[in-house]
Amino acid sequence: MINQLVSKIKKLNAPIVVGLDPMLNYVPEHIKKAAFEQFGETLEGAGEAIWQYNKQIIDCVYDLIPAVKPQIAMYEQFGIPGMVAYQRTVDYCREKGLVVIGDIKRGDIGSTSEAYAVGHLGKVTVGSNRISAFNEDFATVNPYLGSDGINPFIKVCKEENKGLFILVKTSNPSSGEFQDQLVNGRPLYELVGEKVAQWGEEHMGDEYSYIGCVVGATYPKMGEVLRKIMPKTYILVPGYGAQGGKAEDLKPYFNEDGLGAIINSSRGIIAAYKQEKYANFGEANFADASRQAVVDMIEDINRIF
Amino acid sequence: MINQLVSKIKKLNAPIVVGLDPMLNYVPEHIKKAAFEQFGETLEGAGEAIWQYNKQIIDCVYDLIPAVKPQIAMYEQFGIPGMVAYQRTVDYCREKGLVVIGDIKRGDIGSTSEAYAVGHLGKVTVGSNRISAFNEDFATVNPYLGSDGINPFIKVCKEENKGLFILVKTSNPSSGEFQDQLVNGRPLYELVGEKVAQWGEEHMGDEYSYIGCVVGATYPKMGEVLRKIMPKTYILVPGYGAQGGKAEDLKPYFNEDGLGAIINSSRGIIAAYKQEKYANFGEANFADASRQAVVDMIEDINRIF
Repeated sequence: MINQLVSKIKKLNAPIVVGLDPMLNYVPEHIKKAAFEQFGETLEGAGEAIWQYNKQIIDCVYDLIPAVKPQIAMYEQFGIPGMVAYQRTVDYCREKGLVVIGDIKRGDIGSTSEAYAVGHLGKVTVGSNRISAFNEDFATVNPYLGSDGINPFIKVCKEENKGLFILVKTSNPSSGEFQDQLVNGRPLYELVGEKVAQWGEEHMGDEYSYIGCVVGATYPKMGEVLRKIMPKTYILVPGYGAQGGKAEDLKPYFNEDGLGAIINSSRGIIAAYKQEKYANFGEANFADASRQAVVDMIEDINRIF
Repeated sequence: MINQLVSKIKKLNAPIVVGLDPMLNYVPEHIKKAAFEQFGETLEGAGEAIWQYNKQIIDCVYDLIPAVKPQIAMYEQFGIPGMVAYQRTVDYCREKGLVVIGDIKRGDIGSTSEAYAVGHLGKVTVGSNRISAFNEDFATVNPYLGSDGINPFIKVCKEENKGLFILVKTSNPSSGEFQDQLVNGRPLYELVGEKVAQWGEEHMGDEYSYIGCVVGATYPKMGEVLRKIMPKTYILVPGYGAQGGKAEDLKPYFNEDGLGAIINSSRGIIAAYKQEKYANFGEANFADASRQAVVDMIEDINRIF
């Protein structure tokens, strides 16, 4: 799956991923109105609204981008109907040929991590059947529990030709509270990065490993160090745009080959119509605004090469 | 909610929690057969089987225990039908008066952590309605992302009278890979423990804070240190029984008042009928075996006082 991701990035000349993190206040009124008329102001209504919103955006951007990253929390908050909207979004994106990175940040131990791995990336056994449940292509994983939490995911990725992005240094202001603590003079995130590089070397695609990592765009100096520690690791980079990361900060995340990083933008794309820059599209044409924001983002990122 | 948990523990003289982590191979054949006859060997069939299994165990143990801890991964692996079984389990346990600790180990940043908090412990806004989705009483949370990941959960707990258990030192063999790394001569888990104590002091119930933590039974020496660092923090202790933790190891996790810790057992209770000790119950009476295992566990734990 990492080979497929890299080849799509090359073909489209677009090292980007669109974060499908729908908040109800991003969803245009006409979509909410239709959903609430059908299902009421209920969890079902919310699930329908975010699914219809996602679908229109996907239809307008899928040919420009290699991948999407739905953030499961934004669906899970609406309970079962939200999870149904997540499932529909994942399925629809895969039908459209997009690589789907499930931003699930799961992590537990042994058989529990295995259950997450199986449910999101693999197949679960029921009687004599083996069945895919959520079936994303990649998943983000939290490393706090160590190898016991990661190995079950790696095993499933190997069997199913899937991949991971393991949290190394997150984009948020307080990420340093634990991640930056010095261990023998070096920050913890570097140790985690070394571990990711080790896991990755044993699980290679053609050019890059299918064990990737997450490093926030908001910490480019750390990104530079981590790039060197993990030369064969694809870095998923959140924090561009709305969180303050700028294109010129992103260079250190890439290798000399112009590969090795994929930059995420969520509300900068899916809620583009709310920005002054794209206001002329109007709420009715929100998905066209998203398409324009994708075009602009690709151009912005490609300036750095 | 922490007051309710403490008062139930005192009343029942049972500082224990039953982990509802159903694996299909724990579920007796007659339950699987009925579920598969109705729904086939499908995700729906699996969801029905684990729900019926849970229900019978709950009916047989609810009057003896203060709380249950469903591990969401074991449901999530069966996709949407699995999540429906999780929801039914949570709702049923709450109806039975049990405190429900959702073992979800979520953790993200800002608005994303807020979405998890709202979906699991609070109410999500849909139009003019505020609606509970999963509605557990407590949730376990991963601290790797720092305060940004924890504060949205704390905010919801305060509004909704709910609580957290934040991972400090997990029970698994590789938990030390990152958690034990020395920072200025002290292991990282102590720093996390101090942070939990700080968060906790600002968010107190009557005797204990509603910001609790998780420390594995498999590391009693670390438990002793952490008990002192976090005197007002309830410690959720996994790893007793099947994972190797013994009752005599558990004393350091408790305060002088005999409170401050709640010991989890999962397969030791729910799959008791598979142990030689309880084999005489037979598969048909699996839930009675679970009840006996609860009685034995309470006795075993109370030996240490």
